[in-house]
Amino acid sequence: MAKNDIAGAAIALHKKLGGKVTIEPAMDVKSRAELSLIYTPGVAAVSSLLHKNPKLARDYTIKGKMIAVISDGSAVLGLGNIGPYGALPVMEGKCALFKTFANVDAFPIVLDTQDPDKIIEAIVAIAPVFGGINLEDIAAPKCFYIEEELKKRLDIPVMHDDQHGTAVIVLAALINAAKVVKKDFKKLKVVVSGAGAAGTASVKLLLKAGIKDVIVLDRKGIVDATRTEPHKKELACATNPRRIKGGLSEALAGADALLGVSGPGLATAADIKLMAKHAIVFAMANPTPEIIPEEAKKGGAAIIGTGRSDYPNQINNSLVFPGIFRGALDHKVRQITDEMKIKAAKNLAALVKKPTALRVVPGPFDKGVSQAVARAMNPVRNRVSNGMKES
Amino acid sequence: MAKNDIAGAAIALHKKLGGKVTIEPAMDVKSRAELSLIYTPGVAAVSSLLHKNPKLARDYTIKGKMIAVISDGSAVLGLGNIGPYGALPVMEGKCALFKTFANVDAFPIVLDTQDPDKIIEAIVAIAPVFGGINLEDIAAPKCFYIEEELKKRLDIPVMHDDQHGTAVIVLAALINAAKVVKKDFKKLKVVVSGAGAAGTASVKLLLKAGIKDVIVLDRKGIVDATRTEPHKKELACATNPRRIKGGLSEALAGADALLGVSGPGLATAADIKLMAKHAIVFAMANPTPEIIPEEAKKGGAAIIGTGRSDYPNQINNSLVFPGIFRGALDHKVRQITDEMKIKAAKNLAALVKKPTALRVVPGPFDKGVSQAVARAMNPVRNRVSNGMKES
Repeated sequence: MAKNDIAGAAIALHKKLGGKVTIEPAMDVKSRAELSLIYTPGVAAVSSLLHKNPKLARDYTIKGKMIAVISDGSAVLGLGNIGPYGALPVMEGKCALFKTFANVDAFPIVLDTQDPDKIIEAIVAIAPVFGGINLEDIAAPKCFYIEEELKKRLDIPVMHDDQHGTAVIVLAALINAAKVVKKDFKKLKVVVSGAGAAGTASVKLLLKAGIKDVIVLDRKGIVDATRTEPHKKELACATNPRRIKGGLSEALAGADALLGVSGPGLATAADIKLMAKHAIVFAMANPTPEIIPEEAKKGGAAIIGTGRSDYPNQINNSLVFPGIFRGALDHKVRQITDEMKIKAAKNLAALVKKPTALRVVPGPFDKGVSQAVARAMNPVRNRVSNGMKES
Repeated sequence: MAKNDIAGAAIALHKKLGGKVTIEPAMDVKSRAELSLIYTPGVAAVSSLLHKNPKLARDYTIKGKMIAVISDGSAVLGLGNIGPYGALPVMEGKCALFKTFANVDAFPIVLDTQDPDKIIEAIVAIAPVFGGINLEDIAAPKCFYIEEELKKRLDIPVMHDDQHGTAVIVLAALINAAKVVKKDFKKLKVVVSGAGAAGTASVKLLLKAGIKDVIVLDRKGIVDATRTEPHKKELACATNPRRIKGGLSEALAGADALLGVSGPGLATAADIKLMAKHAIVFAMANPTPEIIPEEAKKGGAAIIGTGRSDYPNQINNSLVFPGIFRGALDHKVRQITDEMKIKAAKNLAALVKKPTALRVVPGPFDKGVSQAVARAMNPVRNRVSNGMKES
């Protein structure tokens, strides 16, 4: 479908549906006897039990299966700060995908505040209902603070998907791309354009996974120690080991991979020509990539990925988040660690039996995607499999 | 089933279910084409639309159909302050009943705070997702403040069901009971035991519906002008026109109806004998009523109701809340007014074609219950039908 057709069809479908998720009772209530079990007086026995032992809530209530998908609408898709009502259709869509892809119950929450501390207070207040918190479309840098605080204050896993979902799928794609171009993954020279939520988390995970040479760019050029924002200072410290100065051209000279998580109009074919042979270009801005695939190809890129479904190699976090929370719920984990994320990326990469330039990641409807990710959330299995190549 | 059997069966059922509501996608997502409509890129068109015109959220998102059932766990059933996890099974049960009885989507929220202002802030923050707020099991007197503040700050209907759901069903039952004993409803002398959430709201609605002579009791006896709590001062002002002093015995002398919304052990047969002929006794504390029906009968009561399903005349707000919010959503009302509540009670009473001593209210599974209540939320119809006996 053409772009305008998709927009029109999406608006019509949303109006017809009137909300993309529904609530269903888990059982029939057709008699006074059934009523007396699920509601008063029978429910009082369950309430008393959970009052005495709140930890049992995971076994007796929706807490054992329910994820909150929460946004303040401050950084939605490529649309920016469009507020809670603008964000709601996206959160509903994610909740529908949670159930479709990983049988996870998820409920959308959009917030009538964009103040970081008020966001934290609201989420802490409603957390008892949930088995995990998926933060979504919250602008950087406040997204870092909000996630860190919530991790400290809550005993359920909290994950900002724009950061970590993206980081996992980027890592998976890069593992397979390195195989295709026959380069040593850990020796890749990687340039990341974008130091927001997705860029920052991707850089950190790539470093954790063993890559040594990463250069990060933002609008001002290569991120270096002169930056004042705390998360950029931190990035500067951990990256650019060759101490390159300048902008995109300087960063790209001899680079093996360009990862775009910024926005359209970043690079041209001429820029790509500065890269090493068999260059990898993932231009993931949605809907318009940092460089259109045709132009990247003209510049000599060997492997090209985008965030879009109408090109090969759709590098999208919908491959990641359903499985992350499926596994977190199954294994009752309190934190989603870097080790789990790296394992998830490796499992995802391994799903593609023979990676090619046109297929470095699985498709969203491929079998076993959410299971592969969920398996990586098992802390016991991960501990046992240390040093092994595959779980 | 005996009491212990019900408790055991309820615990087993809750463990088996692992949560009494589930989230289901409103549509299949089986292809990339469907994915592109409900998620990126298609959803962006809907997000942009709602950003420009947030009022359309009712038509394009779950806001048009979703109610929040919210508690801080401070006054749950007869169990008292058992906190959020104790409250959760009750809220889930209500959500299941919302769908079962009135096809209303409802999601349970329990809060990790009992501070009134923090409760208000949390609810305001998450309100954009919802088309209405059902407050539940929040202790008096803070429940009054919380409800009033939320009504001022939100543009969706807010109702504390312990107050208003109870008041509506009490009014409905009393209308029919007056018919059975052939007394003029407005001339009834009514004694209300309990000045908490349910008692206060019931007294106010009875007065609004035209009853003149109401006496309210709390643990200290007849509520009079010496009380310091604001809601009790207000009650004292509006009630006890004969300025009776004392306790239960003094209040009951010559009374036509005793409404118990306090707790067990209130009255004996001897107390009921003080009442007027053909006395009406609604002893609604759960699970143990203020006076057991056998004892009330011994005292000469003509009509006896309880909150329990194992006696005739179960006076329970599950007859009310599903229809209230069904109607509020259907008619997009911003406030649930006293006029609507009185109309709902009249419609409920009228559902019982021939009231008898053993049937002054409909049963929860009777046909037309939620529709009768929902109809009363139509502001236009109510205006047109002024002065008419039935809508």
